[in-house]
Amino acid sequence: MPEPDGVPKPVRIGLLGRGNVGAAFAELLAERAGAVEAATGRRPEISGVLTRSEGDFGAILERSDLIVELIGGTDPARDFVLDAMRAGRPVVTANKQLLAKHGDELFAVAREAGVQLRFEAAVAAVIPIVRTIQESFGAAEIARVFGIVNGTTNFILSEMAARGASYEEVLAEAQRLGYAEADPSEDVNGADAAAKMAILARLAFHTPVGLDQVSSEGIEAIAPDDLAYAKELGLSLKLLGVAERREGGISVRVFPCFLYGGHPLAPIQGSFNAVTVQGPAMGEVTMSGPGAGGLQTASAVLGDVVSILAGEAPVHETREELPIVADVPSAFYLHLEVADRPGVLARIATVLGDHDVSIKSVVQRGTGEEARLVMVAHECLESRFAAAVAALGELEDLRAAPRYIHVIEEQE
Amino acid sequence: MPEPDGVPKPVRIGLLGRGNVGAAFAELLAERAGAVEAATGRRPEISGVLTRSEGDFGAILERSDLIVELIGGTDPARDFVLDAMRAGRPVVTANKQLLAKHGDELFAVAREAGVQLRFEAAVAAVIPIVRTIQESFGAAEIARVFGIVNGTTNFILSEMAARGASYEEVLAEAQRLGYAEADPSEDVNGADAAAKMAILARLAFHTPVGLDQVSSEGIEAIAPDDLAYAKELGLSLKLLGVAERREGGISVRVFPCFLYGGHPLAPIQGSFNAVTVQGPAMGEVTMSGPGAGGLQTASAVLGDVVSILAGEAPVHETREELPIVADVPSAFYLHLEVADRPGVLARIATVLGDHDVSIKSVVQRGTGEEARLVMVAHECLESRFAAAVAALGELEDLRAAPRYIHVIEEQE
Repeated sequence: MPEPDGVPKPVRIGLLGRGNVGAAFAELLAERAGAVEAATGRRPEISGVLTRSEGDFGAILERSDLIVELIGGTDPARDFVLDAMRAGRPVVTANKQLLAKHGDELFAVAREAGVQLRFEAAVAAVIPIVRTIQESFGAAEIARVFGIVNGTTNFILSEMAARGASYEEVLAEAQRLGYAEADPSEDVNGADAAAKMAILARLAFHTPVGLDQVSSEGIEAIAPDDLAYAKELGLSLKLLGVAERREGGISVRVFPCFLYGGHPLAPIQGSFNAVTVQGPAMGEVTMSGPGAGGLQTASAVLGDVVSILAGEAPVHETREELPIVADVPSAFYLHLEVADRPGVLARIATVLGDHDVSIKSVVQRGTGEEARLVMVAHECLESRFAAAVAALGELEDLRAAPRYIHVIEEQE
Repeated sequence: MPEPDGVPKPVRIGLLGRGNVGAAFAELLAERAGAVEAATGRRPEISGVLTRSEGDFGAILERSDLIVELIGGTDPARDFVLDAMRAGRPVVTANKQLLAKHGDELFAVAREAGVQLRFEAAVAAVIPIVRTIQESFGAAEIARVFGIVNGTTNFILSEMAARGASYEEVLAEAQRLGYAEADPSEDVNGADAAAKMAILARLAFHTPVGLDQVSSEGIEAIAPDDLAYAKELGLSLKLLGVAERREGGISVRVFPCFLYGGHPLAPIQGSFNAVTVQGPAMGEVTMSGPGAGGLQTASAVLGDVVSILAGEAPVHETREELPIVADVPSAFYLHLEVADRPGVLARIATVLGDHDVSIKSVVQRGTGEEARLVMVAHECLESRFAAAVAALGELEDLRAAPRYIHVIEEQE
């Protein structure tokens, strides 16, 4: 959108709230301002910040092109968002309570005013589930949306299962680590997940869903021995949100639920979130990632801001000419067939050591005259590993050419 | 976009190709035409179909508002897509070879012509990875994109690991089941995955990536005993595509790779695809789902068509007023503390049977005077299960109130 004098005007963003997410967003926006400009043609700048103690909403609105609402709660957030949209400003919000309680009113005003209202960060933070349901699956038949949409409870249940600890012990630890709030009731009683599921159900089924229509049950009553028995039955416990079409209508619920090992949500551990969308044409698509965190949530807010500034999705454009780096580090699996005679392992280890290749684990099997040595080598430059393998190939002990395959090492 | 007379004109879609995906798309579009109209205000219709034996491209272009290219290959697909864009038509394509080989030219023409070029279906079918990278993460710093982007090889490796069968055996089976083509070379030698990674690298790093810059290695040389040893080391094998920033540039590669059990891609089995995007702000977001299939691919094409018709993302609008269905079926875990005396299990089983609740598995533990019965009941209406539990509560054998938790049963 170049102005008459050829210099595009910056986009003025009014930021409501400077808590955990608000502060992270302000920092991320400053850091990525150049990337936003490259993607949308317009450079963003924060034109005003409203906090509990500072700033005047009217004045901020006046000098903003777009409002980012990160105050949380419904009052005064609701008035601010409604006023902003009525004044023709598109709004980005991360406020699940606001959308779950006042969605009908907010969407009606957005449509009347002809402005965008985006809220990716309100559900599962940076996991792009709102965009996927609204845009990728905008005309698809969705049968069911379900998932783990509260990280605090998933952390608690993961720890209870891993350590056999009680709900109270793990909750106290989660509070110490910052995974649970001082007052965790909205998380552990299912209310937080219920608000998110009300939003997802509305989007998936194009129907109004009130918070009072979501039945929810929390995890406070889960006992460690339920988890112990469940393990014997091959089950793991999750706090699940499920929104699905049912004969005659829909069902939207939040409840603790055991999953069998093969279920796509069974491996989701710790404070991660994951959401699955199912339908007759798409099959089953699952998205997982960090479900909370200031920076992760701010990252979702930034994505919404960029989409509003871009308008119709832009065509890909190259901005850089990055060279290809051919030689990169990797860990490796190495399979050697060797003569089963004294000193073999020492000779092999010496060659590897000479090339600075260090070994993480070894499995050795004798098979009569021969032995197989299977090892995993720690990360090193591929060229170095290849040189080590070439040198191994020179050893008289080898009965076949060495075989090797990349490995991705466990993260600490 | 209402016309002067108040009736919006339908959107005329020219369809190039009526193979597996093309036929599925035509059917899906007819089925979802009403939903597309609800989402975008315009009803789509197929205005012409070009097949190898029928149809004239010029005539189809003339009477189309949008072109969907599902012919595959680069010739004549490239000319058709370029001509369509030059004639001002937005294009949706599922053609990974075309984009990987001629991306620079195609994107340049799309920008010149001011039309959209969308291609979600070209990588990982219905998994919305293209949209996520381009839109949700359009201004984000992406450090790495990696994943399983070829379903055929993932099916082969999953089966080899599960059954200890050889590459040749499993490939023959995959061909019988339709998971591998008669000529599977593009899949098994890594070329198919390389094309997809070239596209993802270009989008993630905003840099041109040629197919010849992607180093790739296939799975033909993998031996069953590599998989057997790997199992002992806690590793599972995947054909991985990795595109990442490296000091001085980027690296884009396809190679077989062992993963430890905790890795987010380790649980991806069979013909599924999965892609992870990593960056400093977003953390790690993983998306998985069916990576191929006519209907799943058509579903991604439909999402692109809807986005083109919608232009700027529409504000949520309710289209239905669906009632909440309160009583739904579920399987349950049931935990009973009972007196350890004769006939207890029979009495409990009778109560459950009287309520038509059927038991899938039971774990029983004696603890002195008491016993614990832990069972999983097959799916039944929640109200019926609750009535059974209430009736169990009346039994004199019970030492504590029954506890129960939802279970999602294994899929067959």
